Amino acid sequence: MAENHSNVLRLRRLGIDTHTENMIFVRADSQICRSEGFTSNTRVVVMNGGSSIIATLAVITSPLLLDGEASLSEFAFESLQVHENDQVTVAHLRPILSFRHVRAKMFDKKFNELALQHIVSDITKGFYSHIEIAAFVTACSGDNLALDEVIYLTKAMINSGTKLNWHKPLIVDKHCIGGLPGNRTTPIIVPIIAAAGLTIPKTSSRAITSPAGTADVVETMTPVNLTLEQIQDVVRKEGGCMVWGGTVKISPADDLIIYVEKALDVDSAGQMIASVLSKKAAAGSTHTIIDIPVGETAKARTKEEAFLLEYYFRAVGLSIGLEVEVLITDGSQPVGRGIGPALEARDVLAVLRNEPDAPTDLKERALKLAGLMLETAGVATKGTGNMQAQQLLESGEALTKFYRICEAQGGFKEPTPAPIRHDVLAQTEGTVTKIDNRRLAKVAKLAGAPKSPGAGIYFNAPLGTTVQQGQPLFTIYSETQGELDYALDFLSSENQFIQIDSYT
Amino acid sequence: MAENHSNVLRLRRLGIDTHTENMIFVRADSQICRSEGFTSNTRVVVMNGGSSIIATLAVITSPLLLDGEASLSEFAFESLQVHENDQVTVAHLRPILSFRHVRAKMFDKKFNELALQHIVSDITKGFYSHIEIAAFVTACSGDNLALDEVIYLTKAMINSGTKLNWHKPLIVDKHCIGGLPGNRTTPIIVPIIAAAGLTIPKTSSRAITSPAGTADVVETMTPVNLTLEQIQDVVRKEGGCMVWGGTVKISPADDLIIYVEKALDVDSAGQMIASVLSKKAAAGSTHTIIDIPVGETAKARTKEEAFLLEYYFRAVGLSIGLEVEVLITDGSQPVGRGIGPALEARDVLAVLRNEPDAPTDLKERALKLAGLMLETAGVATKGTGNMQAQQLLESGEALTKFYRICEAQGGFKEPTPAPIRHDVLAQTEGTVTKIDNRRLAKVAKLAGAPKSPGAGIYFNAPLGTTVQQGQPLFTIYSETQGELDYALDFLSSENQFIQIDSYT
Repeated sequence: MAENHSNVLRLRRLGIDTHTENMIFVRADSQICRSEGFTSNTRVVVMNGGSSIIATLAVITSPLLLDGEASLSEFAFESLQVHENDQVTVAHLRPILSFRHVRAKMFDKKFNELALQHIVSDITKGFYSHIEIAAFVTACSGDNLALDEVIYLTKAMINSGTKLNWHKPLIVDKHCIGGLPGNRTTPIIVPIIAAAGLTIPKTSSRAITSPAGTADVVETMTPVNLTLEQIQDVVRKEGGCMVWGGTVKISPADDLIIYVEKALDVDSAGQMIASVLSKKAAAGSTHTIIDIPVGETAKARTKEEAFLLEYYFRAVGLSIGLEVEVLITDGSQPVGRGIGPALEARDVLAVLRNEPDAPTDLKERALKLAGLMLETAGVATKGTGNMQAQQLLESGEALTKFYRICEAQGGFKEPTPAPIRHDVLAQTEGTVTKIDNRRLAKVAKLAGAPKSPGAGIYFNAPLGTTVQQGQPLFTIYSETQGELDYALDFLSSENQFIQIDSYT
Repeated sequence: MAENHSNVLRLRRLGIDTHTENMIFVRADSQICRSEGFTSNTRVVVMNGGSSIIATLAVITSPLLLDGEASLSEFAFESLQVHENDQVTVAHLRPILSFRHVRAKMFDKKFNELALQHIVSDITKGFYSHIEIAAFVTACSGDNLALDEVIYLTKAMINSGTKLNWHKPLIVDKHCIGGLPGNRTTPIIVPIIAAAGLTIPKTSSRAITSPAGTADVVETMTPVNLTLEQIQDVVRKEGGCMVWGGTVKISPADDLIIYVEKALDVDSAGQMIASVLSKKAAAGSTHTIIDIPVGETAKARTKEEAFLLEYYFRAVGLSIGLEVEVLITDGSQPVGRGIGPALEARDVLAVLRNEPDAPTDLKERALKLAGLMLETAGVATKGTGNMQAQQLLESGEALTKFYRICEAQGGFKEPTPAPIRHDVLAQTEGTVTKIDNRRLAKVAKLAGAPKSPGAGIYFNAPLGTTVQQGQPLFTIYSETQGELDYALDFLSSENQFIQIDSYT
């Protein structure tokens, strides 16, 4: 189409943050809306220099913008790398050709390799709206992806982003599919494995809906926002790292897909397997341990489900040249005692420092995974991995390596729990028989976690503990009195969510 | 949860129009975001007095809003019926229970009647985000809905909105599933049927992506934005109406579903049938004629597809007590000569006024449908409907009735084509053998249709016309020189889209 000067707009920054959705705002009565027929929710291409993004248009019916002006959502300003007063050209979006494969899938046709490559490539380029991604996710959900389709999807995702090469024959990694609260084995396993002489370039995520993600926890002890070059330096020096994965664009398509899956609360086995294994492969891993917790609130609710997932993980791993070992673990209760970044970090340090009151469940879990990793990598013979990991931990070698990795990442600091504290006391004596983990997490979030890294809960009475009346069950930590009040408000309005049965 | 005063926000109107999506804007660093953990894309409940809506939150990182203030999208201001300076309370959204049925459908479980009632009811209440509706649409797409599920969905939609009762035993209606350009039979059929003494309370839609919808066309001759009471008055007086359906909330859930289907460009047969028949039943119709055009760009591409649709329409109609007759028609080329509201209205009036150059294709199509309607309603004996319709049209009775309906709706006026006109001439002599309708529609839209009701195209050379070099092929109509230039710009940048083969 001939370019029309009315399609060129000057940018103003209104500061509208719509998460990962590219949006453009223009006046409803502007020339561009009249001439192009743009209305709210039109999908458009926004160009600046040689770069372009796809965005959803919203019209403004107030004097926030003038004719000839446009604003972008914050994410779109970043994606297009433009600034206030820059000029952008806006045009209609041509139909997304690859979406016809998604439509065909709705009619139960199978994806072939090329179709999934096109789809993932178009999602990576930002061509798909959230609505279109939701359709793709739904069409792939349930048992709708056969093994070969999962393999194609995995390969397409590997090819869609940055690929790392560590120039070593053996790179180990781990992943837990469960999202089990407090399951912070990573900062314990990484130093054990690195101390054994292996290479483990571990990236982790931040919290999305939970009071803390692994990256949030590690960040209370050492910087985690490293550039790819910095990560490579750390790994070259120390054999391992514990960083946030968000700066390395391993799989941009997958990030968008996961966002929509979370919004739908849908876990599609095929997509999850492709997501996990493609990230491991693209990050340069050769040997990966997958931790599958089984429990009521975990992703795998029964052992049967876990076995099926194990089969898929191994088969897809085989097809992409990644050695995959699966460990099926207990996912019935949270791990450790802290909930919130600094408080979980305290658990991690207690284990690494071999403190007598360190949470044994966290320690045992970390040793089991590290042991399997040592065996898989051929550093320990079968059956001796756990022992060797224990030796590396209890000798203090893991702690030393932990400090060295932290130094390489920018320095170690003690995690600082928040200053305002409040003990919640047992109202009767007896034995703790049930804990509502979801409500506990809510209290931790109301107290400020993870935005205030010191906020959260420290749990003093795990399942089976015998308590006296008036004994602290848990302590709430917060940065401000207001946040504490907010958590206490919620506590007082809720039924008791720690069940104590009296002695019989 | 104990209500916290920080959850009460004062509204400011920023004039952000996000189509049919409820959105709420708050400051990123506001107390409510900190205490509730709200981030962009959190789904929240917004309450005012006894009313509430569900909205998607977006945070503002600029001084557009103060702490304690919020803005809503224009649609949300309307949905919640609030104004600037009103106070709203914002809270987390509880999980939408009915969505578990959608998840189950992804795993190939069948919907039962209760599940579809809950889903449609929750969509009606605005509980589903566009992402969730996209998942529902996708899960129902292809052949995923069995006949009983289509029947449950139809019944659920009938019960979700306003139901009209005309207190008459026989109410006729029609619907064309095709979206064939220029297919404006409605303003011809309604007066014929009403002149025959039947009751036909016809509601129509406006253009979404086309240069004109039936309501846009009728609006160039008479008001179409009538309240339900006004519609009832018109029908009581004249036996028929030709109004916009948007003011009558027949099926609010369906409007949202259709919006997402259009965004995905997905036509699910099951959902389309439920949508059409539920609207007819809720609007009080007892006898409905369904026009299924068959053609390359129509919904039904082959006669076989049309036959299958016919079966579903009849079977679902039977189960909800609606008599359905299906007419399978030619959908291979547009109907009439005008493209754009006033220009299509001119075609309609030419037929009603029996002008010698009235488009015969439009006339014949209208008579066929009206004839079947008369037969179905028992007013004409089988085989005589077409003739009776023709008699009512050619005698001028239909025109008289048309004027009377217009008077009842608020008065008749002649449609006014836009003043600036430009003839596009044949560059060679020969016979018109091919017309690219999509590009013609684009020119009409660039010229200003449907926002400028007089703008569009009048087509002088339908398929098969013999033309001389320099003879006008079509005329562009626009309100401003700028819009005309814009259409001409597009024309000059495109290859010839009317094919003229020279005499052989």
